[in-house]
Amino acid sequence: MKKLQIGIVGAGRIGNVHAKSVTYSIPEAEVAMITDVNEAAAKKLAETYGVSKWSADYHDILNDPEIDAVLVCSPTPTHADIAIAAMEAGKHVFCEKPVDLTIEKIQKTAEVAQKTGRKLQIGFNRRFDHNHGRVQELAKEGKLGNIELIKITSRDPEPPSPEYAASSGGLYIDMMIHDFDMAMFLAGSDVTEVYAMGASLVDPRIGQAGDVDTAIVTLTFANGALGVIDNSRRAAYGYDQRVEVFGSLGMAAGENDGDTTVRLSTAEGVVSDKPQFFFLERYMASFVLEMRQFVDAVLHDQDVPVGIHAGLMSVVLAKAAKKSLEEHRPVKISEILEA
Amino acid sequence: MKKLQIGIVGAGRIGNVHAKSVTYSIPEAEVAMITDVNEAAAKKLAETYGVSKWSADYHDILNDPEIDAVLVCSPTPTHADIAIAAMEAGKHVFCEKPVDLTIEKIQKTAEVAQKTGRKLQIGFNRRFDHNHGRVQELAKEGKLGNIELIKITSRDPEPPSPEYAASSGGLYIDMMIHDFDMAMFLAGSDVTEVYAMGASLVDPRIGQAGDVDTAIVTLTFANGALGVIDNSRRAAYGYDQRVEVFGSLGMAAGENDGDTTVRLSTAEGVVSDKPQFFFLERYMASFVLEMRQFVDAVLHDQDVPVGIHAGLMSVVLAKAAKKSLEEHRPVKISEILEA
Amino acid sequence: MKKLQIGIVGAGRIGNVHAKSVTYSIPEAEVAMITDVNEAAAKKLAETYGVSKWSADYHDILNDPEIDAVLVCSPTPTHADIAIAAMEAGKHVFCEKPVDLTIEKIQKTAEVAQKTGRKLQIGFNRRFDHNHGRVQELAKEGKLGNIELIKITSRDPEPPSPEYAASSGGLYIDMMIHDFDMAMFLAGSDVTEVYAMGASLVDPRIGQAGDVDTAIVTLTFANGALGVIDNSRRAAYGYDQRVEVFGSLGMAAGENDGDTTVRLSTAEGVVSDKPQFFFLERYMASFVLEMRQFVDAVLHDQDVPVGIHAGLMSVVLAKAAKKSLEEHRPVKISEILEA
Amino acid sequence: MKKLQIGIVGAGRIGNVHAKSVTYSIPEAEVAMITDVNEAAAKKLAETYGVSKWSADYHDILNDPEIDAVLVCSPTPTHADIAIAAMEAGKHVFCEKPVDLTIEKIQKTAEVAQKTGRKLQIGFNRRFDHNHGRVQELAKEGKLGNIELIKITSRDPEPPSPEYAASSGGLYIDMMIHDFDMAMFLAGSDVTEVYAMGASLVDPRIGQAGDVDTAIVTLTFANGALGVIDNSRRAAYGYDQRVEVFGSLGMAAGENDGDTTVRLSTAEGVVSDKPQFFFLERYMASFVLEMRQFVDAVLHDQDVPVGIHAGLMSVVLAKAAKKSLEEHRPVKISEILEA
Repeated sequence: MKKLQIGIVGAGRIGNVHAKSVTYSIPEAEVAMITDVNEAAAKKLAETYGVSKWSADYHDILNDPEIDAVLVCSPTPTHADIAIAAMEAGKHVFCEKPVDLTIEKIQKTAEVAQKTGRKLQIGFNRRFDHNHGRVQELAKEGKLGNIELIKITSRDPEPPSPEYAASSGGLYIDMMIHDFDMAMFLAGSDVTEVYAMGASLVDPRIGQAGDVDTAIVTLTFANGALGVIDNSRRAAYGYDQRVEVFGSLGMAAGENDGDTTVRLSTAEGVVSDKPQFFFLERYMASFVLEMRQFVDAVLHDQDVPVGIHAGLMSVVLAKAAKKSLEEHRPVKISEILEA
Repeated sequence: MKKLQIGIVGAGRIGNVHAKSVTYSIPEAEVAMITDVNEAAAKKLAETYGVSKWSADYHDILNDPEIDAVLVCSPTPTHADIAIAAMEAGKHVFCEKPVDLTIEKIQKTAEVAQKTGRKLQIGFNRRFDHNHGRVQELAKEGKLGNIELIKITSRDPEPPSPEYAASSGGLYIDMMIHDFDMAMFLAGSDVTEVYAMGASLVDPRIGQAGDVDTAIVTLTFANGALGVIDNSRRAAYGYDQRVEVFGSLGMAAGENDGDTTVRLSTAEGVVSDKPQFFFLERYMASFVLEMRQFVDAVLHDQDVPVGIHAGLMSVVLAKAAKKSLEEHRPVKISEILEA
Repeated sequence: MKKLQIGIVGAGRIGNVHAKSVTYSIPEAEVAMITDVNEAAAKKLAETYGVSKWSADYHDILNDPEIDAVLVCSPTPTHADIAIAAMEAGKHVFCEKPVDLTIEKIQKTAEVAQKTGRKLQIGFNRRFDHNHGRVQELAKEGKLGNIELIKITSRDPEPPSPEYAASSGGLYIDMMIHDFDMAMFLAGSDVTEVYAMGASLVDPRIGQAGDVDTAIVTLTFANGALGVIDNSRRAAYGYDQRVEVFGSLGMAAGENDGDTTVRLSTAEGVVSDKPQFFFLERYMASFVLEMRQFVDAVLHDQDVPVGIHAGLMSVVLAKAAKKSLEEHRPVKISEILEA
Repeated sequence: MKKLQIGIVGAGRIGNVHAKSVTYSIPEAEVAMITDVNEAAAKKLAETYGVSKWSADYHDILNDPEIDAVLVCSPTPTHADIAIAAMEAGKHVFCEKPVDLTIEKIQKTAEVAQKTGRKLQIGFNRRFDHNHGRVQELAKEGKLGNIELIKITSRDPEPPSPEYAASSGGLYIDMMIHDFDMAMFLAGSDVTEVYAMGASLVDPRIGQAGDVDTAIVTLTFANGALGVIDNSRRAAYGYDQRVEVFGSLGMAAGENDGDTTVRLSTAEGVVSDKPQFFFLERYMASFVLEMRQFVDAVLHDQDVPVGIHAGLMSVVLAKAAKKSLEEHRPVKISEILEA
């Protein structure tokens, strides 16, 4: 059987992750070409995984009739344009998040997917995490009864540079976007209103750049449940990623993963592992799984597990949160969607 | 040495708890008299603990020159009046929470305490819980660095009757008051603003009675930290009482207590204990400790560990939360205090 | 109702524990007299718990017609004689372990109990521990299927003085006796053979005194199950008390108790509590429960929960273990019982 | 750089594991040929991993001058002969355990390794497990002080067929061999004496075949420490793999790995994951790591992490345990080595 031929646009950190997954973990697919505006980076990544073609121009992927699917791993502002062009060129698309920073372009991307009938999966990899995924399964299977309350803790081990924080669109779009998607995934419901709190407690330069580094956002879901997310740009003990879903029949909660289960007991206390350091450690298996399911969706013409609706709603929530913080009031999602 | 002579007003559940603590766990004190408008209840409780005097009228305690201190365990609307009368009669007072449902009367109670120089301790027993207390110690000792985020989960195993919910003043004053106090205790700071969400998801009759049974309240602390409390009137797995304090150097978090540490591993999974059932199980030791410290404060003329400021602020926060829910906006504490 | 009148022989640490339990936790009983060869000690303990009678001579208890039951808390060599004399004087007896260091005297004690029809309970308090007790319940209820393997870890926080170790009869009789009883309790079966290993690794003076301070003993149970106990006289992290029962349907295992459930997460790791320090902390509730059940057995003429068979077999196992170590071979219980 | 060329003898389960590790996880090496007496199996495995050469005869590997190293994954009775032939053909060897069932042949293998100067690594993969490995590191780094006691629990989820049990050499050689090696690895010391208990409690046919399915073996280490291993052929809750090392400064203990950290709390209790099912799940990463280090040892001419001494001593201990069970007495290692 001919393997699914994949082109990767963007040879940065996440492009590398996906190239590795496809090469080593998905026998039914292979990377056919890698492009990056920095051609040396594309070449280096291609060589690492034995890929024979690379280029500085992503159109080379679009124009290659052998290539079936494109992974959009370029910088955020280019996501939507490349995804749209790829679908119009007949390719299936896996697009990293956020799809775009404007609602309009995300909606445009959705329309093109609709029109072309191409698969379009958004890179919310955390849905494929073993812990979060199990919690969602328990909720979906009804083990928790009616869902009433969702709690998500998401703290990075170290803050980004103030420059990055300033240019990234801010914490709500850059960091909490994952948690917004997770919240809707766990609740099995969209959000109708958010209320955002935020402060700059970690690094004053982040505050000076107009962003927050510590945040709590509450959520009202369409199905009546309530939710709350807390984020911090810095956790001294490592990458803190926990979710909790509470319902009429019980609660499911996931703890962090450590590298080992070993406990050292001495006169000082009983010490166990810190959470695994950061997303490349904690979420590596989830990156493989999302790619595995994207390939399956293409090969067997199934629905993708994370569609453009998730891509849209996560950005909408981020915008609503930002507006809520600025106007110091709860903001309805309809205010953003209908703006 | 003559034992501290204690009078107890109110022979209900909490009066019983304190009578037991004094009798069995505090050698330096003894219960001298118990009163209750239901004299039979007073008599029965007195006999249980070998107390020789009982009465239907709390003035009998106030008029007894042998009695040094009064525990106010009567219904909420009578707390402040009895506490005031007791202090004016020269007695030290331990008063159950809430001190009163009006700001005015709590402030009046504070003034009388000030004027008479009597000890006045408020019954926020959870501060004396081994888990919560340890978390607060770690925060206070600086082990967590600057405090940035406080999270409190507090869920009752079973909802009260709709009648009780309707008459109790509502979830924020009846249930979350403990968590408001805990939040300020953990943060080492007062709250300046609250935003409240609430829904009736557990029992529709609670909603029909105008109350909520599921709630999230976010807090802004004077010291800059953020906080969030979630409450539910019903948790299928038992009484869920957890706190988490997050700061620049780390996090301290307490889990629930189970009856045992035993894990049963079978083909079905690994099963461990549910949280202890309810507050009489989980918090029993804290009731003894708060009384122990009240007796010490009186005997050695020390500051009480929980003063009237805590009694005031907890009610103020509850009122602010209620107003926030009604007006669907964040509410500053000053709006309540200066109303 | 008249309270059960209890006499306590021996005003040391364990006498104090039982005096406290009876006074504060068992309303149906009261301490009527305390004796100790050191009369000042008896007097002091009596005053602590408001007991009006004390003496240097335990016969004063035996001769007091008001007294129903005797707690034998004196030094080991006097246990059996006092227990026998008390039963012959018509008193029910609660006897601390070991009943005696000779098989003969334990059997004599059993005969007197049989002849007089008095209750005779042996002080194996650990059976009443919440964790160990739960494991045994699960085993007894069949949740584990056929019992196949028992593991017991029992490590003291600090070694006794070499003098004590030398005079106590050695680790197997002084320390592991509790674990021998626990093993048979958990297995629901007597032991038929033991094999003992031992070394002096903690304190060379213990070895010089002819004892071991680190030991492993394996057990063969009459019901076919296998077992193993490990003991150490010193655990840097505190009092380590864990049991595990494994059967055809699963495993039940108890962890240590800490003072709190709090975990502190910092850059150094995740730190939780050490085990509670020593037996007065870990096993306090079990001392109350065993006394509670002794009083119930007397008041309602029920079987005592821990009879003289347990007192006998635990000493037999200790002797077999010692012989096994000395002769470096497995030793059958029948070799000791029929010696 | 030319990749290390590897030949694999034996296309069964473990051959597959190593072929996968080399192909996907070790860029510096590649599988050049696979042989199996069942040529179809060799061909199938070769095709799975894109290996161009296969054969029914392992001499084809030995005769291939391009091949640098051989992985001996054939049935146990052929291990030593193939390893010896391979080393004499100039190949480095990774040999699965047990090296042989006779002491003589293992010693012969050692001599050939010595004489030829070829690398010879034995497949004790569990040393590379994240949990066990961490415990050993803590011990080796001195965090536990002087090592005093080692405990190892090793229970398979399901018993093998009685036929397999009968032909495998028995539990001590077939199953406990891993634990014997682990014990010496953790203690950093050889064993000088063993005492073995065993019973057939899981499947009577195993007993009828002359083997045991439930076993406890105690160990005396050369460094004075004591140890104990328990094995069962069946654990209803899954593959139970735990080690504990206790020393003068503390204890390190590893728990099982579950698939997730999720806990489900309902009215029935708090349920967490069972241990991962079996060795292919629990130990997969360790198989990669041992191969990674074998390749490094060859490429950089370093010592192999697990040498032939481990291969010898583990079999010696198994033989001593079997003798101990048969003769019902402790057996010195010297009795086997000098037999």
